[in-house]
Amino acid sequence: MPIYSISHVENVRVCVVMVGLPARGKSLIAQKIVRYLSWLSIKSKCFNVGNYRRLIATDSPITAEFFDPQNQDGLEVRQEAVDRAIQDMMKWFSDENGVVGILDATNSTRERRQAILRLCRENLIEPIFLESWCNDYELILQNIADVKTTSPDYQNKDLDFATQDFLQRIKYYEQYYETMDVSTDPDLTFIKLVNVNSQIILNRIESYLESRIVYYVMNLHIKPRSIWLSRHGESEYNLTGQIGGDANLSERGWRYAKKLPDLVLKSLGEENKHTNLTVWTSTLKRTQQTASFLPYNRKLQWKALDELDAGECDGMTYEEIEQKFPDDFKARDDNKYEYRYRGGESYRDIVIRLEPIIMELERQENILIITHQAVLRCLYAYFMNVPQEESPWMSIPLHTLIKLEPRAYLTLVSRIKADIPAVSTYKEKGTSQLGEQKDGNYLKSRDLINDSEMHKLENQAK
Amino acid sequence: MPIYSISHVENVRVCVVMVGLPARGKSLIAQKIVRYLSWLSIKSKCFNVGNYRRLIATDSPITAEFFDPQNQDGLEVRQEAVDRAIQDMMKWFSDENGVVGILDATNSTRERRQAILRLCRENLIEPIFLESWCNDYELILQNIADVKTTSPDYQNKDLDFATQDFLQRIKYYEQYYETMDVSTDPDLTFIKLVNVNSQIILNRIESYLESRIVYYVMNLHIKPRSIWLSRHGESEYNLTGQIGGDANLSERGWRYAKKLPDLVLKSLGEENKHTNLTVWTSTLKRTQQTASFLPYNRKLQWKALDELDAGECDGMTYEEIEQKFPDDFKARDDNKYEYRYRGGESYRDIVIRLEPIIMELERQENILIITHQAVLRCLYAYFMNVPQEESPWMSIPLHTLIKLEPRAYLTLVSRIKADIPAVSTYKEKGTSQLGEQKDGNYLKSRDLINDSEMHKLENQAK
Repeated sequence: MPIYSISHVENVRVCVVMVGLPARGKSLIAQKIVRYLSWLSIKSKCFNVGNYRRLIATDSPITAEFFDPQNQDGLEVRQEAVDRAIQDMMKWFSDENGVVGILDATNSTRERRQAILRLCRENLIEPIFLESWCNDYELILQNIADVKTTSPDYQNKDLDFATQDFLQRIKYYEQYYETMDVSTDPDLTFIKLVNVNSQIILNRIESYLESRIVYYVMNLHIKPRSIWLSRHGESEYNLTGQIGGDANLSERGWRYAKKLPDLVLKSLGEENKHTNLTVWTSTLKRTQQTASFLPYNRKLQWKALDELDAGECDGMTYEEIEQKFPDDFKARDDNKYEYRYRGGESYRDIVIRLEPIIMELERQENILIITHQAVLRCLYAYFMNVPQEESPWMSIPLHTLIKLEPRAYLTLVSRIKADIPAVSTYKEKGTSQLGEQKDGNYLKSRDLINDSEMHKLENQAK
Repeated sequence: MPIYSISHVENVRVCVVMVGLPARGKSLIAQKIVRYLSWLSIKSKCFNVGNYRRLIATDSPITAEFFDPQNQDGLEVRQEAVDRAIQDMMKWFSDENGVVGILDATNSTRERRQAILRLCRENLIEPIFLESWCNDYELILQNIADVKTTSPDYQNKDLDFATQDFLQRIKYYEQYYETMDVSTDPDLTFIKLVNVNSQIILNRIESYLESRIVYYVMNLHIKPRSIWLSRHGESEYNLTGQIGGDANLSERGWRYAKKLPDLVLKSLGEENKHTNLTVWTSTLKRTQQTASFLPYNRKLQWKALDELDAGECDGMTYEEIEQKFPDDFKARDDNKYEYRYRGGESYRDIVIRLEPIIMELERQENILIITHQAVLRCLYAYFMNVPQEESPWMSIPLHTLIKLEPRAYLTLVSRIKADIPAVSTYKEKGTSQLGEQKDGNYLKSRDLINDSEMHKLENQAK
């Protein structure tokens, strides 16, 4: 029997059809949905028509005139780009068992949307239209600022030129743009977001996956904020190499707890030093002890942030586990994400219980989370788009504060070391020995769109 | 530190102001929200203006003419009813630390809604308007059928008279009803449901509690369906009186598993015998073994349905727990809902992890759940509105199939005994002995509105 969860949906394929003028945050929303669903093991992929257009029209630099509805050549290229994107998406559904495909394009006219609708129905795919509509000029300018600094269309271009050209491009689209509306599209399944999500219209949302996508999108906001992550300070179990349990901090762990308020202040910088953080811990003593010197009065415990339950292996060392359950020990190394301890949990189980935490994190502003190695790996994997086969092997050292700053298309990471020694809790594949604690290969920013590395910020606190 | 969860919301008070013509399902939605939030330990109460009106105008039988906008006496009584309801609600917020109050009335005009808005703001209460708008005549007639058989206004009245009178009442309201709209109410926080939830408009939904209420309401449906609940068959641990673990079924447990398909068929009745159920189990062997003879091919495991984790007491008998941890044993008896086993869970913890299950159950149609004593108590408490101090003490015997049929204002319960003996797993307060297995005081229908008993269906399968 399969394990049921949000990550298990049988025989359903959904195509999210983005709708909206340029600079309405469509790509950002599309990328976030892909990241969220992928984290939940729902196979998802974004098909960006702009990327296809750039593959076709390689020879000419693109300016606004290309998007003039009178420009016949432009129209042909754009039609071909859409066709290829849809073709690839359909192939991905059938050949790779895709579950949620996102068609990221303006899809500006009712005619175009009807054509996509027909194609989806012919292929037994549920279409859900997601329009981002916006008449808040400030928001649009802010989006243009993001686009012109990240879009390949404006590489090496003057910023003023890029802004003006992009505004002209939008004007061309506005000539024939048709918004979605209950009166004109009563039978379509759609979500219409007005000015981010100050207003939301939902029409005929029926299936489980649709309702999950809606709820996720509803909770997104674009206010600037940061998220801080830290493991608890070194515990007495860490010293003896035991896993699980509910031990107290070691002497060095307490030193980390005392230093943590300073690390947070440093990460805030002088101008933001009065920022009021909310602190989330697990229900286990070592996280609460680590939080105990923080000067913030909103401190909340979540059972969902408790460490991976090692079941029968709770309180054992890796060597004891290898001796007592050699087959389990090997099975876990072979597939650490799926392996469930006898009477305990797997990484997949943690992701399922963390889902409400992620939802709440998306809603909140500045949160500092003090939790445990496996839980932190899962949270980090969500923000940094780390694939499942890698996330359980990430090295996330003790006595290190991580600051995440979500931006439009990437998350900036700073890592602030406390310079207080701690044992390593990092076990490499194929051994029961705890290795040298690594600096954390994954502690770097990831570009949501190109999945390449972009920025790397490192601050070292003394 | 408090335990954070949906059940913990600091310093927020919300007033849900229902809006809608008569027979639009307002009371039903209001009652379901109260039941859901109460189950999650969020103090909630519904203030039904109709009940206040009946308290004031006791001498005359109410007919449609009472609601004629030209009827000055009627207007005065109705104004007084609203005033009293609001007064009581404000008193409840301040004296009893209420969190979510629901004002269940038509609140038909913009003027009335503005007055409520002002009052909420003066009292630092967040107002959220929830309109149920409906132009589907079939749905309206169906709602009238529910109302006329349950409303005190039509007790002992002829059914045809009641229907006609109620339609006339609606006509009077329609004369001055003003629907909510983004153009006329751009600054109000509101949810507008159109024809149940075939379309939903959300405006300025911002806070955590608001977004939870929205998500819950979004997932409600009114298609007829049933939910079946069963504990696993008797297990080998049940025979020895041990709790927790992952034991196999006993010989009698296997007999129950083999008989279960018959019990389900009997509960379906001849005309529905081909109904296709979906079976949900926990990840533990005893529930999957119990499901193994069921002829349905959709069988899904949920980790969230696993039994209460007894932590260090896992695998012990109650006598052993009493000997080894006498203080814990007593503490658990004193407050069984809150008591968390060392390294394990409390009933409150189970409710938090069951929340996604409840949401999914609200979305689904026919589901058969095979799970464990504590989990079943929590699920049952949700459907039957059983208070927290009672739910952990409910007797839910082994080898008994429970069928729940949610109706407009109550849930019908049938209990089908397999007539296969099993040990008792029921422990009374203040003893470590397992007592006589009771028949289950709570296995009866509860009226959502009056919280009184209404129906009791019992089928006994041989």
